[in-house]
Amino acid sequence: MTVAQDTADTPRAVVLFSGGLDSTTCLAEAAADGCECHALSFDYGQRHTAEIEAARRIAAAMPHVADHKCVTIDFDGMGGSALTDPAIDVPETATNGIPPTYVPARNTVFLSIALGWAEILEAEAIYIGVNAVDYSGYPDCRPAFIQAFESLASLATRAAVETGRGVAVRTPLMELSKAEIVQRGAALGVDYADTVTCYQADAEGRACGRCDACRLRRQGFRDAGIADPTRYR
Amino acid sequence: MTVAQDTADTPRAVVLFSGGLDSTTCLAEAAADGCECHALSFDYGQRHTAEIEAARRIAAAMPHVADHKCVTIDFDGMGGSALTDPAIDVPETATNGIPPTYVPARNTVFLSIALGWAEILEAEAIYIGVNAVDYSGYPDCRPAFIQAFESLASLATRAAVETGRGVAVRTPLMELSKAEIVQRGAALGVDYADTVTCYQADAEGRACGRCDACRLRRQGFRDAGIADPTRYR
Repeated sequence: MTVAQDTADTPRAVVLFSGGLDSTTCLAEAAADGCECHALSFDYGQRHTAEIEAARRIAAAMPHVADHKCVTIDFDGMGGSALTDPAIDVPETATNGIPPTYVPARNTVFLSIALGWAEILEAEAIYIGVNAVDYSGYPDCRPAFIQAFESLASLATRAAVETGRGVAVRTPLMELSKAEIVQRGAALGVDYADTVTCYQADAEGRACGRCDACRLRRQGFRDAGIADPTRYR
Repeated sequence: MTVAQDTADTPRAVVLFSGGLDSTTCLAEAAADGCECHALSFDYGQRHTAEIEAARRIAAAMPHVADHKCVTIDFDGMGGSALTDPAIDVPETATNGIPPTYVPARNTVFLSIALGWAEILEAEAIYIGVNAVDYSGYPDCRPAFIQAFESLASLATRAAVETGRGVAVRTPLMELSKAEIVQRGAALGVDYADTVTCYQADAEGRACGRCDACRLRRQGFRDAGIADPTRYR
């Protein structure tokens, strides 16, 4: 695929991209919207090198992805989540309320850094793959949170002050079920074989098949009627 | 100094703390407000080891500081500021508008990580030493920005969702001139000798005396009628 319009007219977007099912679909949505995509990953102690390598391969293989950065954050032992604190177990049965895999203020941090990069790139939008399935559990996946961040962005940057232009936060998956996300991604040509969703993937990026994220993903393929290409260990 | 009330009743605060004049005064203000202070510094490629060591010494010497973390962020070459991009010069004469030392979305990023730590600590407030002198230049030092972040925080965390409690963002220096900040800090017993404000301090933490930050600081001591203990090179 090539970008149809002149590069100068192509809107730029920063796309939060973990290499998982949702964010890979979100990246495909941003490309389908005609954006020049700048994929942004984070390594905050949660990821195996194999997952970051997989994210790099996926981003490199997708059309309209101009570049991909991976920001590393060392929280100096703050802990607070099963994803970053070895003392907290990742649950393997369904949990009520906000699960222990919740990372305090994670999307606020991710969106903030995306905002900085968007300002540098003069990007007009940030894409984030939050959706209705997640927002039942995570506070920072809700539409009200996203709207509040957009309001903040309209005050936070040089561009906002000098030109009145803020940055739009787009959530193309917000209203979709996991099955609809899979169907939408498949229609956009996404290859999910390399995407890693599992909270505790092994060093080769193979999924456990038991954590919350694995269960939601597996059910999504089943409900979508699409063969699950996930590599389980 | 010891904390008068029972530890269980002492409110906790996360204090953004660079080891500079403003944030050191802000830390003293949080302590004077009766908070158990958790100082938070950032190393995003802008700082000499000497400055981080100085920040550690200052935090360790101040009363009511329970701990001090330094979060390291590697932006993977995003650039965009004279403080992180060697290709952009730090100006040594006054600039109009937002100066090149502006780091895109910096306070949004800092406050977001402070919010995550505040959630882990069950802290009730975040202190940030923004002030009127800065907000003429930096968009993310203005009262409207701080208020927007507080609104975001009221939606972003587990505590906000489960109990309706947000986190207050306190800006005790907002309305003060640099001279008033110095006077206030001196009254609170702050020793400014070890604080580093300079944008281009040398490896021993000695100030250039010429950059915007040095000029404002020097003038602050002069206007306050207090001897300037800054180590210039």
